[in-house]
Amino acid sequence: MKLNCDMGESYGSWTMGKDSDVMPYVDMANIACGFHASDPDHMAKTIQLAVEDNVEIGAHPGYDDKSGFGRRSIPHSAEAITRLVAYQIGALEALCQLSGGEVSYVKPHGALYNDMMAQPRIFEAILSAVSDLNQHRSSALKLMILAQRDNQHYTELAAQMGVELLFEGFADRAYSSNGLLVPRTQVGSVYHDSHRIRQQVAELANGKVTTIDGQTLALHVDTVCVHGDNEESIAIVRQLAEDLRHV
Amino acid sequence: MKLNCDMGESYGSWTMGKDSDVMPYVDMANIACGFHASDPDHMAKTIQLAVEDNVEIGAHPGYDDKSGFGRRSIPHSAEAITRLVAYQIGALEALCQLSGGEVSYVKPHGALYNDMMAQPRIFEAILSAVSDLNQHRSSALKLMILAQRDNQHYTELAAQMGVELLFEGFADRAYSSNGLLVPRTQVGSVYHDSHRIRQQVAELANGKVTTIDGQTLALHVDTVCVHGDNEESIAIVRQLAEDLRHV
Amino acid sequence: MKLNCDMGESYGSWTMGKDSDVMPYVDMANIACGFHASDPDHMAKTIQLAVEDNVEIGAHPGYDDKSGFGRRSIPHSAEAITRLVAYQIGALEALCQLSGGEVSYVKPHGALYNDMMAQPRIFEAILSAVSDLNQHRSSALKLMILAQRDNQHYTELAAQMGVELLFEGFADRAYSSNGLLVPRTQVGSVYHDSHRIRQQVAELANGKVTTIDGQTLALHVDTVCVHGDNEESIAIVRQLAEDLRHV
Amino acid sequence: MKLNCDMGESYGSWTMGKDSDVMPYVDMANIACGFHASDPDHMAKTIQLAVEDNVEIGAHPGYDDKSGFGRRSIPHSAEAITRLVAYQIGALEALCQLSGGEVSYVKPHGALYNDMMAQPRIFEAILSAVSDLNQHRSSALKLMILAQRDNQHYTELAAQMGVELLFEGFADRAYSSNGLLVPRTQVGSVYHDSHRIRQQVAELANGKVTTIDGQTLALHVDTVCVHGDNEESIAIVRQLAEDLRHV
Repeated sequence: MKLNCDMGESYGSWTMGKDSDVMPYVDMANIACGFHASDPDHMAKTIQLAVEDNVEIGAHPGYDDKSGFGRRSIPHSAEAITRLVAYQIGALEALCQLSGGEVSYVKPHGALYNDMMAQPRIFEAILSAVSDLNQHRSSALKLMILAQRDNQHYTELAAQMGVELLFEGFADRAYSSNGLLVPRTQVGSVYHDSHRIRQQVAELANGKVTTIDGQTLALHVDTVCVHGDNEESIAIVRQLAEDLRHV
Repeated sequence: MKLNCDMGESYGSWTMGKDSDVMPYVDMANIACGFHASDPDHMAKTIQLAVEDNVEIGAHPGYDDKSGFGRRSIPHSAEAITRLVAYQIGALEALCQLSGGEVSYVKPHGALYNDMMAQPRIFEAILSAVSDLNQHRSSALKLMILAQRDNQHYTELAAQMGVELLFEGFADRAYSSNGLLVPRTQVGSVYHDSHRIRQQVAELANGKVTTIDGQTLALHVDTVCVHGDNEESIAIVRQLAEDLRHV
Repeated sequence: MKLNCDMGESYGSWTMGKDSDVMPYVDMANIACGFHASDPDHMAKTIQLAVEDNVEIGAHPGYDDKSGFGRRSIPHSAEAITRLVAYQIGALEALCQLSGGEVSYVKPHGALYNDMMAQPRIFEAILSAVSDLNQHRSSALKLMILAQRDNQHYTELAAQMGVELLFEGFADRAYSSNGLLVPRTQVGSVYHDSHRIRQQVAELANGKVTTIDGQTLALHVDTVCVHGDNEESIAIVRQLAEDLRHV
Repeated sequence: MKLNCDMGESYGSWTMGKDSDVMPYVDMANIACGFHASDPDHMAKTIQLAVEDNVEIGAHPGYDDKSGFGRRSIPHSAEAITRLVAYQIGALEALCQLSGGEVSYVKPHGALYNDMMAQPRIFEAILSAVSDLNQHRSSALKLMILAQRDNQHYTELAAQMGVELLFEGFADRAYSSNGLLVPRTQVGSVYHDSHRIRQQVAELANGKVTTIDGQTLALHVDTVCVHGDNEESIAIVRQLAEDLRHV
């Protein structure tokens, strides 16, 4: 089970995240592509870091909304979503080609991620972008989505378009008994205690998770999302990386 | 000798140029890439038009400056230029992959084009982007620059980086006896008369041009830049396309 | 009854609308403020036109979304709406002070207008901006909203905040029997025939409107929205201006 | 002699500067206006802080260039500069009117500040904006510029347009014997030692400064620019505020 982390979210003179500090401890870097965050310079620097630390590079496309950091759902047609995503993947891929890296997967960002999980037409529009780009690649891009109790519907749709999925869990988010994340607005939805977080990651590595009401749920995840925003979160990522080495 | 035209310069709800009207008469479409103009939707629509009319697709990258339409020179480091250009080419290439098209050349836009011709470090930074991207392509991108009396310096630099150049002339711009364009601020710098324009294109097709002071100059051009802004300019492009068929 | 028209919607090198052609025939110019369209230069030019033709100047604030032209609803807190609107009004007012004009009313644009009519919290947030700015003005800004059969709720809320409302009808939109506009998605929702449009404006000037199903409805409007996009719409505006001179 | 500090430079989800920590120790807050940094929400929050700490509010307009943080000189006509500056002042003033604050001065930002000092036409264009806005204000805006050995030329131009100037010195920048700042590219141009900084501020409070080559120069400044970026710079500002209380 791999650790993935959102990266390259700085923009112009504004810094966000401690990318160079957290990069050595993660396996997959989701790199913002200039629409909700980042710009060609920050993308190139983040790619450089990933290449140096031998970390997989993922495109992290979002809505074209810097002032809202891609966290606001903005209405788009399905075709517009396909183009929005393809544009950003292509831009990141070209920057990788300057540094010897390569994009290997796609993880939509923020509101686009949530809309993808909530609206089949958006999931399919993103699949369409990935599928079309894969026709021109020697190694196929995978698409990362939220792991759920029953992923069959998503898996079937993706299979129809020849796209392989990666299922993502969250290290610091409480799960409901239905297998979904407890909404952030609810008390206890986010774990801050490193013991609790390590326990959840250990469980996820074994294909299960303890829900907020104490049940044990089977949940298959390929990768867990972690954060590199500050010293505390980076310390936890370091521990998780150490823990997973012994799994 | 081919006709090239700037295209895909609409943005959101704003329309610029009559792309669908002029597309049938040109050979090469320089498509804006979302920095000085365009967006994924307009890029995709312009690609579609080019594919339908069997027109070559070129990336037309510019400075990140929509309010100035890429016509204002904005200071950048050489590395930043390389990334700026690679990003935009990659984005356009990905959108091409949704439609069955392919980017075959690069023509910088506006102030970036002028800066490329005026500053060797910017020319080299752009060559560097094209060269790096070509390592990952089956068919190499060419770089379009302004044809001059003596192109040797440019040709040598490009050859060192393994990039092939395309030399561009202008259908409606007066030339000085030094082989450069007469600055737009000077009276008589732009031709509006269709006879004069057709005569210049006919000359360019034969490797020469008559300067503003009546001299005949040898000038090698691979392609001539034309405009599709309005009915008049499109009528001229149609004539030029017809004229060139008989060369 | 006055004619109002959206103006100043050009942006950078992109032109939208024939402002100078339609300005002589309208009474109120709703000027975009740089968020969904326009920029300081186009705003200043539009103000100049309005001042020359003695046309009332209204702020036309929208969501910060040029690529969507302010037509996409973007989630905002109430405080953020108040600030968004105040910022844009203040910017336009300052540009007026360069030219001797003055902002006299506010009409939200596009999705912000629709959200204002659909969500009381957004209507109140906009009222709050207008009310606070009015504390510092010698002449109070009015707020333009969509006229409905029963405007009492809006009038009461506005009165509580000391803001005077202007009620707007539409020249070329069909009305339902409930007094609301027939949605654009429905056949027959937009009138293109100049006779039908002139008839509707004549009715509105007399406090009534004939609905899409043939009923006559009482509807009080202070102003009617017209369009200056092209030759046809401007010809209609000229007729309407002539018609209203004889009412 | 007052301490002024650039503030409100956060943007969307990106934070810059520790405004709430440094606000209590300064006298004048130069607030970014949404073009090179900030947005209506961050502007409103910064105004709130300034009002609470009884700090004077200044408009800090810049070029429309978030990706370059207003540090790149972008060509503008004189009229465009006047409009750019007026727009931003008006926007900030309106947000002040939501909170009970008031803009009392203008300090251009970054490249616009440098261009103002280097090009008389830009200085005059900014004066023109301030002068026109002052016609509509009960209390006049002042314009802050860089203090030089001989300010007469600037003072005369400003007097012709009825604008009062504020002269600014720098706490942590070395001065040349010609009274100008030592360029940042030169070794020793920026002081990091708090003793040296306190000494320079003490000197400036007495109308003089020791240059990088040891001369003592007469220099009149109304205010000194300080920084609130991090813990170290804020500690220095606190000391300077304490020092100045005893002058």
